[in-house]
Amino acid sequence: MSRDAKFAAAAAALGYAFDGEIKIGGNYVPLLQEGRTIYVSGQIPRVGDTVVVTGRAGAGVTLPDAQRAAKVCSLRALALLKRALGSLDNVRSVLRITVYVQCTDSFTQQSEVADGASEVLYAVLGPAGVHTRTSVGVYQLPKNATVEIDLVATAL
Amino acid sequence: MSRDAKFAAAAAALGYAFDGEIKIGGNYVPLLQEGRTIYVSGQIPRVGDTVVVTGRAGAGVTLPDAQRAAKVCSLRALALLKRALGSLDNVRSVLRITVYVQCTDSFTQQSEVADGASEVLYAVLGPAGVHTRTSVGVYQLPKNATVEIDLVATAL
Amino acid sequence: MSRDAKFAAAAAALGYAFDGEIKIGGNYVPLLQEGRTIYVSGQIPRVGDTVVVTGRAGAGVTLPDAQRAAKVCSLRALALLKRALGSLDNVRSVLRITVYVQCTDSFTQQSEVADGASEVLYAVLGPAGVHTRTSVGVYQLPKNATVEIDLVATAL
Repeated sequence: MSRDAKFAAAAAALGYAFDGEIKIGGNYVPLLQEGRTIYVSGQIPRVGDTVVVTGRAGAGVTLPDAQRAAKVCSLRALALLKRALGSLDNVRSVLRITVYVQCTDSFTQQSEVADGASEVLYAVLGPAGVHTRTSVGVYQLPKNATVEIDLVATAL
Repeated sequence: MSRDAKFAAAAAALGYAFDGEIKIGGNYVPLLQEGRTIYVSGQIPRVGDTVVVTGRAGAGVTLPDAQRAAKVCSLRALALLKRALGSLDNVRSVLRITVYVQCTDSFTQQSEVADGASEVLYAVLGPAGVHTRTSVGVYQLPKNATVEIDLVATAL
Repeated sequence: MSRDAKFAAAAAALGYAFDGEIKIGGNYVPLLQEGRTIYVSGQIPRVGDTVVVTGRAGAGVTLPDAQRAAKVCSLRALALLKRALGSLDNVRSVLRITVYVQCTDSFTQQSEVADGASEVLYAVLGPAGVHTRTSVGVYQLPKNATVEIDLVATAL
């Protein structure tokens, strides 16, 4: 199965598609490539017009829900890479993901939340999706999103 | 108008100049260039000895004040780039800005705060100032600053 | 004294060694090199199985303790670089460290905490350890760690 097919399957498994516009606010860009290096802007779990997981991990938002949020964020990042490179087959490596989790003052499973994103990246990209990772717990995120993820990747 | 003149105009519009020393604490550096890639340390809205916007967005600090903080942070980053490269005309691209906003637990306009920085970068650098962006809401920042911004850029 | 010897001395000064496995959770990697550029995953102050400094700076965790946490995080990052490159003599530069400090809502000495890491990097690597830095105060960190640090470096 091609990476692009794996991407579609991973999105469908969550009940979403990312075929349309990837909405992004403000006067910046969702993705920028300089040479082989690609930066992807911070992604929240937005599907179309809706942020599908909002609120605070540890208070109302369960670990599985926060992991689902991380999966959607990473699928959005993959959708952006796919659009920019034509196909996810053109991704050479994912150097870094940074995972910001909106959480309570005693929620310490930020790494477990981030595992949702790491699983998606590996499932879709295989060894090229293996990355370094930083996971932190923040006080709030844009639009009350539970998770925000940005990444640095390289192209073939 | 040259980029350097646009920079001076943007600073003057806020009532500041950034001609003197860019103060920075500790035993690290404000800017580091390796090949074409330039990292700029996290900038708070400090002008001379004063952090000009402090406190928590959503509690005492209004959105316009937080946006002003973001503008000052990005002007400081530009001042550092100008000093390192001789002129802002030597900036090739701004790859990433990360915008940290000290906020309340219910303040969700981190992206709107970050727009202040994005506007300045575009006003001064034009298309070279278009960037990827990550905006998050944090619990505190050095010296009670309302905003902190770091960036990665490239030189011609 | 070689950098590797300086590293061992810095670790010993804190009462730790980092000779064994560097434990890391999840399905990501602690370090990734692409060309000369090296990304190191977010490091918490874990020695073996124990996170040696936990809790919130400004409430129970003193500034010296938080600085010690930052030192351990940076030693772990150095241990990973040493393992990947054979010797710390093969580190060309440290481009960026990002220092996340779990703190109270009124703790504003994130930069002073980060100084702990900056001191270690300079003590071990000399001029090659001079870096750009971003320090922020976050709400929680994995395993209740007081500090988390990631970095970007380059190899010779």
